[in-house]
Amino acid sequence: MFFYLIDVFGTMAFAISGVLTAINKKMDPFGVFVIAFVTAVGGGTLRDVLIGRSPVGWMRDLNYVYVIIAGFFLAVIFRKKLDKLRTSLFFFDTIGLGVFTLIGLEKGLEINLHPVICVALGTMTACFGGVTRDILCNEIPVIFRKEIYATICILGGCVFFLLKALHVPDGLLYILTSGVIIATRLMAVVFKWSLPPLSRD
Amino acid sequence: MFFYLIDVFGTMAFAISGVLTAINKKMDPFGVFVIAFVTAVGGGTLRDVLIGRSPVGWMRDLNYVYVIIAGFFLAVIFRKKLDKLRTSLFFFDTIGLGVFTLIGLEKGLEINLHPVICVALGTMTACFGGVTRDILCNEIPVIFRKEIYATICILGGCVFFLLKALHVPDGLLYILTSGVIIATRLMAVVFKWSLPPLSRD
Amino acid sequence: MFFYLIDVFGTMAFAISGVLTAINKKMDPFGVFVIAFVTAVGGGTLRDVLIGRSPVGWMRDLNYVYVIIAGFFLAVIFRKKLDKLRTSLFFFDTIGLGVFTLIGLEKGLEINLHPVICVALGTMTACFGGVTRDILCNEIPVIFRKEIYATICILGGCVFFLLKALHVPDGLLYILTSGVIIATRLMAVVFKWSLPPLSRD
Repeated sequence: MFFYLIDVFGTMAFAISGVLTAINKKMDPFGVFVIAFVTAVGGGTLRDVLIGRSPVGWMRDLNYVYVIIAGFFLAVIFRKKLDKLRTSLFFFDTIGLGVFTLIGLEKGLEINLHPVICVALGTMTACFGGVTRDILCNEIPVIFRKEIYATICILGGCVFFLLKALHVPDGLLYILTSGVIIATRLMAVVFKWSLPPLSRD
Repeated sequence: MFFYLIDVFGTMAFAISGVLTAINKKMDPFGVFVIAFVTAVGGGTLRDVLIGRSPVGWMRDLNYVYVIIAGFFLAVIFRKKLDKLRTSLFFFDTIGLGVFTLIGLEKGLEINLHPVICVALGTMTACFGGVTRDILCNEIPVIFRKEIYATICILGGCVFFLLKALHVPDGLLYILTSGVIIATRLMAVVFKWSLPPLSRD
Repeated sequence: MFFYLIDVFGTMAFAISGVLTAINKKMDPFGVFVIAFVTAVGGGTLRDVLIGRSPVGWMRDLNYVYVIIAGFFLAVIFRKKLDKLRTSLFFFDTIGLGVFTLIGLEKGLEINLHPVICVALGTMTACFGGVTRDILCNEIPVIFRKEIYATICILGGCVFFLLKALHVPDGLLYILTSGVIIATRLMAVVFKWSLPPLSRD
């Protein structure tokens, strides 16, 4: 239940980040809604398609759709004030990152995939929505350029399997994994950690 | 049979619109063909992948491939005259919009998805081909910016379920739904209806 | 075994071409790795998703992941010297083209798809990785503009079915098909063959 609630928060935060990006591109309301939707469900959809889980997640549980619609209206109504809300938005987004990575890891384990593949699935679940958002807005995906975003998901995945190997019980495992992801992200932004671009000079 | 024929018209119209877009980007003939193909089958392919219907539609019925090839050659041969044919092209495209929405709705119902999801599937089937065309041509998808295109599919989906709730028989249901979509699109273009961009000012 | 080894070479060559493209876009190391990964497995992944083979290929055989990681480190370490290695890179890439087309053709035949669809699958397997690489780097896919790349895969597919109709035994069939693709690509580059853009003038 707690898990589900946080998933809902993450979905909404991702939807809101989609709305803000699309508004900056001067899209019409429908375009903005689609971008919000894709940002929120893109990662889980790619994961489900790749592992053959169909119909994909958001088609089975309508709550995701409702949450995205709510996030859309919230973001549109408060769009002029959202710059001031950027901190809380960032906070939700970070929670989403932790939870979505965890969900991706779990889905991979459910069908007995190798840990390395599970980590890839977790990272995809957390990051692909943002990638699609940026492609649809005709930009190089931000996660490939600026922030150590996906790298944190990979780190979280490694922590997850390390703890699992130590027989940490499930509840604690979930809390610690998402805790590591969330804490690292917060620190990465506070201390401006980033990976330098690979140049050829 | 009539339904199938119109589907063929819609597929060809979408293929032709792909050819015209790609030629404007100075692509070579192969690139133009791929864009035509993707514009025509992209929506149905995404739908089939998301609901787990595989192999996807155009792999099972070769007629789609032949129709696209025919559309490709027609558009390439008559490319210098197609500006004058723009009206008839627009007409086919609009028929395609109505029929493809309907097909998406039906596929969703077949596997007992919720009406809201069916409407999303119908809209995707009708619109995603054009979205992919624009992404491959490195543009922000036109449906997110200029026209009320996808919004009409959503409207059509709502009409469909409203009529279904009123126990309208299938044949009439199909004709009315696609009729509403086609008529609304025609009016939208004639009267220049559009959604204003969501700005932050 | 020989087949598998060449597949590995092709995968690595594609990964390396991804690394070089991404470095030119000034991406950070994670971005570069993702582009390498997508370039190498993108084609096979699309193929598997479209024919409903899940989990997709690289999730079942971890060797692909290891080969890509190796290719990534090789390319990053030797990135300043790779311009001089361009010829050998081009050679691997061409081998990859031949082998990947063949693999796509075979997967289509395995599930009894029509030859035309098999040729499309082979072409996708060989080309879609590069298309995704270019989209993620925000460019019009190079195969739609400059080189006769995909056209060679289609040619190779036709040769494959022609030879198959003549009851050429499997081993010879594979060698001849990939040989035709590799030889044509080499000649295309040496003699600067290309398709002219389709203009409207």
